[in-house]
Amino acid sequence: MPRRDTRSAIIDAAVTVLGRDGPDAFSAAALAREVGVSKATLFHHFPSIGEIPTAAFERMIADSLAIDMPLDASLADTIELLGHGSAELVRARREFFRAYFVLMARAMFDDRLRIQLQASGDALLERLRTLLAPKLASGEDAAAFARLIAIQLDGSAIHRMAFGNDGEIDAAWRLLVELARQKGRTE
Amino acid sequence: MPRRDTRSAIIDAAVTVLGRDGPDAFSAAALAREVGVSKATLFHHFPSIGEIPTAAFERMIADSLAIDMPLDASLADTIELLGHGSAELVRARREFFRAYFVLMARAMFDDRLRIQLQASGDALLERLRTLLAPKLASGEDAAAFARLIAIQLDGSAIHRMAFGNDGEIDAAWRLLVELARQKGRTE
Repeated sequence: MPRRDTRSAIIDAAVTVLGRDGPDAFSAAALAREVGVSKATLFHHFPSIGEIPTAAFERMIADSLAIDMPLDASLADTIELLGHGSAELVRARREFFRAYFVLMARAMFDDRLRIQLQASGDALLERLRTLLAPKLASGEDAAAFARLIAIQLDGSAIHRMAFGNDGEIDAAWRLLVELARQKGRTE
Repeated sequence: MPRRDTRSAIIDAAVTVLGRDGPDAFSAAALAREVGVSKATLFHHFPSIGEIPTAAFERMIADSLAIDMPLDASLADTIELLGHGSAELVRARREFFRAYFVLMARAMFDDRLRIQLQASGDALLERLRTLLAPKLASGEDAAAFARLIAIQLDGSAIHRMAFGNDGEIDAAWRLLVELARQKGRTE
């Protein structure tokens, strides 16, 4: 495999192993086995095993925001599309989201991982801010909107994964969309 | 120790061990050591080690909703108080919340734990629904409001624990409160 493809295959395998087998099974040996390469090849591409989950997480962020978004969508429409897109992603790629929450739970006990995840979280917030800012009235705080939506995205995904009850979670999203729509009407 | 006090001490110690030492350290031996009792005493109070985290989690829920709430608070005021109360709890009891998210992450790989957590989650949603329903106009969906707030409570606590940036998370809560207040003005 060319060098870039191997790196990419390692990241994909990290998402799979973390999501499918849980936090305890994530090791260089398990990862090398999943990719079908030696541990030496693994450490040729990543200086330490600790770098790999964050690289995997950064790919998740890029994928999860690659939602088709019409340029003229209102704030409420944008929130609605983000809600639908993320619900669909959780349904289609459960392993991918399990891996994300495994990393979040681990970050609470691991300062280095927390700093890496923080950088990835900041990238997600920046993309949301860029998406939402043009839909807001002047003086409205785009960073606060981006954070509110990011919290809702993460919180709903966790509720879907840990509790189920997708119908109720969808209803909560519709309510947030309705609140954003009513805000527009008071302006 | 009287029987009830020992049970209570075991639950407290479970919250401590899960929060302080992380998911890998939670075992009957570690728990018995923390309480200062034998493993036999532990299993005298709980039929299996698997029951203990959920009992601990149910105590967390009861504690986290024990926020002083004036009877005449509006919907927006109630959401504001819940936001302040939960931010304060995360600051004051980080271990307690780490333990909660450790359990949530584990539930994604453990069906029995997921069913137990679901029951605890339903109890939280029911308490939120009871709190919010009297503040809503007729025809508004109290279950959807309760779920929206529960998602925001869990999502913000996770963002506080995994990412930090408390100032931004507080701003997102103020925005949600403002959206609820503007909703009142369109009615």
